[in-house]
Amino acid sequence: MTVFIEMDTQSRAMRLMEQSDVLASFSESETGLTRAYLTPQHRAAHDQLALWMQQAGLETWQDSVGNQWGRKVSPNPTKPTLILGSHSDTVVNAGKYDGNLGVLLAIETLAALRGETFPFHIDVVAFADEEGTRFNTTLIGSSSVAGCFNSNWLQVADANGVTMTQAMREFGLDPEKAGSDARKAQDVLAYLEAHIEQGPVLEAENLAVGVVTGIAGAKRFQCEVTGMAGHAGTVPVRLRQDAMTGAAEMILAIEKLAKDQGVVATVGKCEIISGAVNVIAGKVKFTIDIRSASQSALETATYEMLEQLKHIAQQRKLTFDCENIYKAKAVQCSNKLQQKWAYVVERVTNSSARFLPSGAGHDAMVMAELTDTGMLFIRCEKGISHNPREQVLTSDVEIGLACFIEMIRSFR
Amino acid sequence: MTVFIEMDTQSRAMRLMEQSDVLASFSESETGLTRAYLTPQHRAAHDQLALWMQQAGLETWQDSVGNQWGRKVSPNPTKPTLILGSHSDTVVNAGKYDGNLGVLLAIETLAALRGETFPFHIDVVAFADEEGTRFNTTLIGSSSVAGCFNSNWLQVADANGVTMTQAMREFGLDPEKAGSDARKAQDVLAYLEAHIEQGPVLEAENLAVGVVTGIAGAKRFQCEVTGMAGHAGTVPVRLRQDAMTGAAEMILAIEKLAKDQGVVATVGKCEIISGAVNVIAGKVKFTIDIRSASQSALETATYEMLEQLKHIAQQRKLTFDCENIYKAKAVQCSNKLQQKWAYVVERVTNSSARFLPSGAGHDAMVMAELTDTGMLFIRCEKGISHNPREQVLTSDVEIGLACFIEMIRSFR
Repeated sequence: MTVFIEMDTQSRAMRLMEQSDVLASFSESETGLTRAYLTPQHRAAHDQLALWMQQAGLETWQDSVGNQWGRKVSPNPTKPTLILGSHSDTVVNAGKYDGNLGVLLAIETLAALRGETFPFHIDVVAFADEEGTRFNTTLIGSSSVAGCFNSNWLQVADANGVTMTQAMREFGLDPEKAGSDARKAQDVLAYLEAHIEQGPVLEAENLAVGVVTGIAGAKRFQCEVTGMAGHAGTVPVRLRQDAMTGAAEMILAIEKLAKDQGVVATVGKCEIISGAVNVIAGKVKFTIDIRSASQSALETATYEMLEQLKHIAQQRKLTFDCENIYKAKAVQCSNKLQQKWAYVVERVTNSSARFLPSGAGHDAMVMAELTDTGMLFIRCEKGISHNPREQVLTSDVEIGLACFIEMIRSFR
Repeated sequence: MTVFIEMDTQSRAMRLMEQSDVLASFSESETGLTRAYLTPQHRAAHDQLALWMQQAGLETWQDSVGNQWGRKVSPNPTKPTLILGSHSDTVVNAGKYDGNLGVLLAIETLAALRGETFPFHIDVVAFADEEGTRFNTTLIGSSSVAGCFNSNWLQVADANGVTMTQAMREFGLDPEKAGSDARKAQDVLAYLEAHIEQGPVLEAENLAVGVVTGIAGAKRFQCEVTGMAGHAGTVPVRLRQDAMTGAAEMILAIEKLAKDQGVVATVGKCEIISGAVNVIAGKVKFTIDIRSASQSALETATYEMLEQLKHIAQQRKLTFDCENIYKAKAVQCSNKLQQKWAYVVERVTNSSARFLPSGAGHDAMVMAELTDTGMLFIRCEKGISHNPREQVLTSDVEIGLACFIEMIRSFR
């Protein structure tokens, strides 16, 4: 017979913060946290998560694309399964809480509910890829679960030329089975996710948590500007076809358009190809990420932006190519789940719930293809994310945990 | 007894073009020509040059930094040695003629003069590093000969972390002896160099060759812009400290200032450090190369440029650091040698000589520290250089060769 000692939510929140530090040690780089899909660090982090899931009384397994699952088994399931989760991968030089906090919070919620029974299974999932750090293709983990895995992704190669197929084999997965264990809509009750806000709104209003109304739509482009390489000393500036000055003008145009139209747009990668200190840039590659909570604003801004970039290229006698490498439509969170979250937030915090949209993409966005989704945001310091300086307060984690526990109970 | 068959300059120019193709095969990359200092390709190219020098009747040796020498020995030297040369290294993805044409033209000149004797030794040198492709430190080869080798360079590391000391040892050189065999001013008569123009002036005026008046001064900077990395979806554009949009504004300011002040300035390397498609740029590194034939214009433009960049950083709450990694003063070619070149150009081409400055740096710039220098420019197609599309006409090479042969005879 198992004996377990009741812990209060404060102790649970403290344990969760310690677990966050442990998880952050599984990193490809010594300084800063980097953990990409299908790497040894993915393996190590998921082995650790599986152990914690087991310690919370969950049955564990790995699925066809390397997501880690744990199940609180219902002795008498009469309803479809409730899924809780977030992602365990990170960007390059990341913080400790993006994604990982939501996974740990879901596990800790089920640890807290260990003594209670529910008329449905409750699954926790750690999605193995949300960020797209290794293959640029994002949301691989949740896409597989939601039945949206695209088998073309298997041919995509990472920066070292290793394809996803090869990487899956090396990880011990069968690429031919990737996505074959997708869930069916009728078998899923809902998907719930807690995540740090990654923005400044909750902090500005002195709130620990907020209810997410929806997730901004996004488009990403890989762009290439081609000019004419040449000698840095002999070609007068006005006769140049300099790919870098052209790219610079484009980057400033993107910034101005985003400001003017109230969307966000980011050039996160930019490099002169085969550049040298004394050679005029012949080719520049850069990426664009553009987002808006309004799908129509996103479409308009994208169209106008690309027209401007083409015009700049034309004026400078440069060639501009761009490929749409990613798109996600703006997604609404379930109204019913928003109301449920608001109810538990009000009960836990004794104040009315703050509703806010998410500028960042999340697994919930893909899971919305499968089932109703509901998200809870947890405040993070200065809104800093995708950065080693990401911070959350233990007291906020405690509030988030209390909300999550009450939320699960509300489904009974 | 050696028998040699007289060749006309046309046949010699054709042979020289074939040799250019052979030399271009010693490349680190399969497509495009890349040959950096102290690499296996440097070794192979210099072995080939030594063979051609020997076939031209020259005594050959390698010096302390890996320059390749050949000497037409005078049976009765009564004057100091005349040095002819250029460089054999290339930029990344280079053309076949930058530097290499000057080396081959000097060898072919001495092959043509094989039957004649002079009251001085005539040395040909292939400088092993002019471009600075591997260590960013340029003009290593000529600096050693001119007595300007800086022993601090030995600690500089390449992109793979290999120091120049290690690279010299692997090449078979003793780094402790680097620069120890510098020439003395009283032992050198003059330094003569032929080089492709790398600019559009001669082509625009339908001239095969031109006489160089001097070489533009240059400064190079390694710059770093530091902002705040963050999530591409959640931070409103006006609250960002985006290192890439800051760098873009700086790059456009550099371009505008260069246009306004009649100097040339180039950002030839630029990269977001640890960039990702969905992360706001936290750090950008880029280089600046700025040049002018007027030293005072160069100083003024540099000062104003750096002030502008600091101001942009301040406005955007970014940090801007920059390090001066190279400087070369504007250098005059010897007036006496300019007149000598003009005389032979007029004799060979039956038209008056065109005098023009060089926007590009050359070994002659450093050799001017040691002795009088004189340079002859050869037209290249559209002024394209530092590019695989670099082209010269065989008929222009023939004129250049005829001028060079007459120039040497004029010293007798």
